[in-house]
Amino acid sequence: MEQYLSLFYGLSFLTAALAFAYAAYLYLWVKRQPLSNQKIIEVAALIKDGANTFMGREYKILAIFASVIAVLILLFLPSPIWNGDFVSNLSMALSYLAGTILSAIAGKIGILVASLSNGRSAEAAQKGIKPAFLIGFRGGAVMGLLVVGCSLFGVAAVLMIVGDASILLGFSFGASSLALFAKAGGGIFTKTADVSADLTGKVELGIPEDDPRNPAVIADNVGDNVGDVAGMGADLFDSNVAAMVSAIVIAQSLAGTGFDNISMIFCYSVLGLLSSIIGIATARIGKNGNPTRALNSSTYVTTAVYMILTAAATWLIPGFSWRIWAAATVGLLVGVIIGITTDYFTDDSKPIVKKVAHASQTGPAFTILSGVSYGFISALPAMVGIAISALAAYKICEPMGEGYAIFGISMAAVGMLSIVGMIISNDAYGPIVDNARGLAEMGELGEDTIRIADELDSAGNTVKAVTKGFSISAAGLTVISLLGAFMSEVNDALAASGKELLTGFDIMDPTVFFGVLIGAVVPAVFSAMLILGVDKNAQRMVAEIHRQFREIKGLREGDPDAKPEYDKCIDIATTGSLRELIPAGLMTILTTIVVGLIGGAKAVGGFLLGNIVSGLLLALFMSNAGGLWDNSKKYVEAGNEGGKGSEAHKAAVIGDTVGDPFKDTAGPSINTQITVVSLVASLLSGLFAVISLF
Amino acid sequence: MEQYLSLFYGLSFLTAALAFAYAAYLYLWVKRQPLSNQKIIEVAALIKDGANTFMGREYKILAIFASVIAVLILLFLPSPIWNGDFVSNLSMALSYLAGTILSAIAGKIGILVASLSNGRSAEAAQKGIKPAFLIGFRGGAVMGLLVVGCSLFGVAAVLMIVGDASILLGFSFGASSLALFAKAGGGIFTKTADVSADLTGKVELGIPEDDPRNPAVIADNVGDNVGDVAGMGADLFDSNVAAMVSAIVIAQSLAGTGFDNISMIFCYSVLGLLSSIIGIATARIGKNGNPTRALNSSTYVTTAVYMILTAAATWLIPGFSWRIWAAATVGLLVGVIIGITTDYFTDDSKPIVKKVAHASQTGPAFTILSGVSYGFISALPAMVGIAISALAAYKICEPMGEGYAIFGISMAAVGMLSIVGMIISNDAYGPIVDNARGLAEMGELGEDTIRIADELDSAGNTVKAVTKGFSISAAGLTVISLLGAFMSEVNDALAASGKELLTGFDIMDPTVFFGVLIGAVVPAVFSAMLILGVDKNAQRMVAEIHRQFREIKGLREGDPDAKPEYDKCIDIATTGSLRELIPAGLMTILTTIVVGLIGGAKAVGGFLLGNIVSGLLLALFMSNAGGLWDNSKKYVEAGNEGGKGSEAHKAAVIGDTVGDPFKDTAGPSINTQITVVSLVASLLSGLFAVISLF
Repeated sequence: MEQYLSLFYGLSFLTAALAFAYAAYLYLWVKRQPLSNQKIIEVAALIKDGANTFMGREYKILAIFASVIAVLILLFLPSPIWNGDFVSNLSMALSYLAGTILSAIAGKIGILVASLSNGRSAEAAQKGIKPAFLIGFRGGAVMGLLVVGCSLFGVAAVLMIVGDASILLGFSFGASSLALFAKAGGGIFTKTADVSADLTGKVELGIPEDDPRNPAVIADNVGDNVGDVAGMGADLFDSNVAAMVSAIVIAQSLAGTGFDNISMIFCYSVLGLLSSIIGIATARIGKNGNPTRALNSSTYVTTAVYMILTAAATWLIPGFSWRIWAAATVGLLVGVIIGITTDYFTDDSKPIVKKVAHASQTGPAFTILSGVSYGFISALPAMVGIAISALAAYKICEPMGEGYAIFGISMAAVGMLSIVGMIISNDAYGPIVDNARGLAEMGELGEDTIRIADELDSAGNTVKAVTKGFSISAAGLTVISLLGAFMSEVNDALAASGKELLTGFDIMDPTVFFGVLIGAVVPAVFSAMLILGVDKNAQRMVAEIHRQFREIKGLREGDPDAKPEYDKCIDIATTGSLRELIPAGLMTILTTIVVGLIGGAKAVGGFLLGNIVSGLLLALFMSNAGGLWDNSKKYVEAGNEGGKGSEAHKAAVIGDTVGDPFKDTAGPSINTQITVVSLVASLLSGLFAVISLF
Repeated sequence: MEQYLSLFYGLSFLTAALAFAYAAYLYLWVKRQPLSNQKIIEVAALIKDGANTFMGREYKILAIFASVIAVLILLFLPSPIWNGDFVSNLSMALSYLAGTILSAIAGKIGILVASLSNGRSAEAAQKGIKPAFLIGFRGGAVMGLLVVGCSLFGVAAVLMIVGDASILLGFSFGASSLALFAKAGGGIFTKTADVSADLTGKVELGIPEDDPRNPAVIADNVGDNVGDVAGMGADLFDSNVAAMVSAIVIAQSLAGTGFDNISMIFCYSVLGLLSSIIGIATARIGKNGNPTRALNSSTYVTTAVYMILTAAATWLIPGFSWRIWAAATVGLLVGVIIGITTDYFTDDSKPIVKKVAHASQTGPAFTILSGVSYGFISALPAMVGIAISALAAYKICEPMGEGYAIFGISMAAVGMLSIVGMIISNDAYGPIVDNARGLAEMGELGEDTIRIADELDSAGNTVKAVTKGFSISAAGLTVISLLGAFMSEVNDALAASGKELLTGFDIMDPTVFFGVLIGAVVPAVFSAMLILGVDKNAQRMVAEIHRQFREIKGLREGDPDAKPEYDKCIDIATTGSLRELIPAGLMTILTTIVVGLIGGAKAVGGFLLGNIVSGLLLALFMSNAGGLWDNSKKYVEAGNEGGKGSEAHKAAVIGDTVGDPFKDTAGPSINTQITVVSLVASLLSGLFAVISLF
């Protein structure tokens, strides 16, 4: 029944090409903007080099890792090469590599344009908020367009060539393994540098943030880029691909039931990308406009355009179902609502941030306790939202026939992720203007310019909280549909070996329950390993900073001839982050395999559930608590509750330091951890279906 | 086939009577010990009065609450009075009341003997560690014996009279609702007082802990008793009853399958109590002995005796099965192992505490980050232990026939809780010797005595961490079996209304999944509400302390005529704790009902699972992180990492303050929250089976 599929392959390539072309246009536009301040040029070059050092090293290790995995896939997946067919195994290995490479390219170019934009945005801030905003936003939009373009292109190309959705799981796993490196590795990098710079600079020496004497300051700026631009991009590339792939895997099992489901997935993704392009193109800010409002209104434009376009497509094309449109729309609307409620907990014009700031007057313990408490509560709306959207999507699509209910959930995930191009643009805007603020200070562009840069930066922080809530929720719905994909894969394997099929995962079955309990503790241990990794790595970097201040004469006093060795700090952050990341990543993958070998496919189903549930809870808690502490500190610094230098400020700074690895390392990496585990489970479903202790 | 049941009813009553008699003996023994120091007598009386004030107020509110619930039960449960039979409803309402009353009596007497023991233990410490230890331990043992005696007596009496296990759920719910008040209310009380006393005394005025000038000092000592003696006692009474009741409910559905299952439950519980009596009676310490070792060795004695006695009973009595014995033994051994691994994370002679203390040198943010990380990791062994014991018990009993697998899990819970008499004794020992330490200081008994009291107190802290791990795990296994009881109740209701029975709860069913997500977030929100409650309440008390220091002349200077108004502080802690507790309790119960009305029994099954899984994770995390921070602070105070007054010490104190409500308010209350929700679900199963939106 997939009569329009070739048409939508074509449209996917076309839209991806359009996105690439528009990205290229924006890239060139950014590059054309003037940059003349020597100091800024110099520092921006250092940031760019630092980012390249990290990415180069990361990609080198990743290349080794990916090669090993590719060989393993070639040998064992989808079935051992000695009893399967060589072509399938080769296809899967190659699509795995394609997933890593496309994601890596998007990340690399995103970083490149971010490091072009930051200095130019800083210089443009001298002329006002309007040009500075546009440079920051368009720089971020390049990343957004590339990510969605690459994922649409990749999924369509792989499926068109191999024609089998199971092979696509390899592509998705490639995207995930890159995301794990980019997000968790980048998260450790950025917080190592941030924490070390703050501890030695602000606390020990009393010099301002972004002071060029501090050897960690460049690493700190690099960190913003590798963590938020490349990391978040890879994370959402991963979620977006996983959402499409799990929907396609489920749709494949629905073949011949009268609907053009796979065409519909591509059609909606194409329209999502088009809507994002329209949203990006219409982003505007007035001369004295509010940047937060500008970013949000582009998101609303994208959402509205998407809903209209998909409704039109559903109306025009015979094999499309209104029920599925409704499921996708529910997903999208819930995503937007979750973003808004996240904002309530982390925006400093709302009561929660003020309460935590007020609690800081009683001392740091109360900053922590109130932040932890509100962080826990903040998980409620998102969890309820995900629960309701999954239930609604399921119930909406259930009447379409067997298997459609779970397909409805996967389409809710596709719907939620349809505006991901816009979301990434907004998110990548953040580190660009954050860097711009630092550069404005280092380039001594004057107070007015710094004030404008500050305003842009603050909007970036607010929007970042929203996009984090969004990306966690999107991952949540995606992994629910991956759970469906896992079951469908397990049943294929069981059918192939003539065994009884699974009808579901019953929690009263103790192998399932066993899996649930183990799965639930994995995100907690994973987060702990990453946070301890930041801690260990920061100790190394602090020692290096102390060494430089001791050994480089005149550095502390600000002698212009005394140059700090920025690259040493970048080196420590790079090496350390990759070293700390690998055990955490291996732990999650090996646990999945061990659980599967002990309890079989049922235990893995439970494991995925436990992992999703506690992963979502902890990710929301940590991201929101971190954002809350960050903004409480800013609120105090703005002169409230005693202002800078007060006891409340000291307490708020401690809260912010605790929140840093929560919100930028552990919290957002959990998304990726969940997806990786879900994909490993699906890929190895054939193994778990056959071999297990119980 | 329950041919021995009447025998075991008789033995249950007899053993309970023996426990009561032994408790009475120990009570009188403690009372006979000398107490002559006037200052100690005076302060001990204040503590006793304070505890009575709290318990009186608490029980008054509880009486109103319990009456309302009893009336609701009378009207609606097990089925609405207009279509059910009056006798069943009356029986359930009365057994509900019996559950609350028995738990309340045990708590009340426990507090009474604790307040007799503390001063006597302090005075005995002048003669050495041996007599002081024995008084502390025997005082605690009274509580242990009473709790287990009351639960065994209550369950046997209710079942013998009504003959229907479903009615027993009412008894268990009575125990749970009391536990919610005692544990969560007591937890808020104790931490309000502790935090306020520390903040005003140690931090603001620089006077030592337990300084009698501080108006909060008596409230602080009262808090130890109401939180740990009455609260922990009620908590374990609740778990113990719930474990027995859920096992009986499941066993009832296995009637006629050839085994004397209900007799076996009572037999094992009788032998557990006997073993605890033997363990308590043999508790000894040498003249210069180590109190931690003495406490642990009694636990091991109890465990060994229990295993031997139950093996003998299983061998002798024809209707008993070795498989079930094995399941109970697995539960017990895993409980002990979990206790030992918890100790690894919180004992200051082990590496983790030292690492957190070392991290404190870098500042409070690192105290928090490392504590949070190790707290997360510490959940791993317990979660794996619970998972394995549930799986093992299930697999061991599965060959016995349908329904036996889940019965195996419930017997693992019964086995784990069999030594609960010993566990409570050890736990109640803690606050007694903690108080004794304070009294030794206030009574100016000299440095040697204080050193001995310190040693006893430190053993109390170590053992407390272990018993917390144990009680959380026991609650974990219990609620798994409650999940089984819930399904069995739902199916009774479905069968009665002629509907199709449930075969399980499939996580691929979105109503189940919906429940899982909502259930998972409830413990997080519940904890947050309790922590914020402590925060709000402490602010009130700090204001009161400030008022007293301002208005009572000579108080600050230590003028002997200036008496602080201790009762005002006790009043604030009491009123506030009950006021903060009620919304949290209602939130959990109402959420359960709303989920049930939206998604029906399936959603509730999922809800319970989510609740159990995230509840266990958070309870373990918070209890262990709190214990870890507490002991890190003590480790620094013992002269390490800079010792008292150093920056590391300041950081460690902040960690300890954060950890206080974690480990003494939120963490251990989650147990009770889970049990309450599970019982509400079982009680309302008839409703959920019939009415729901989806």
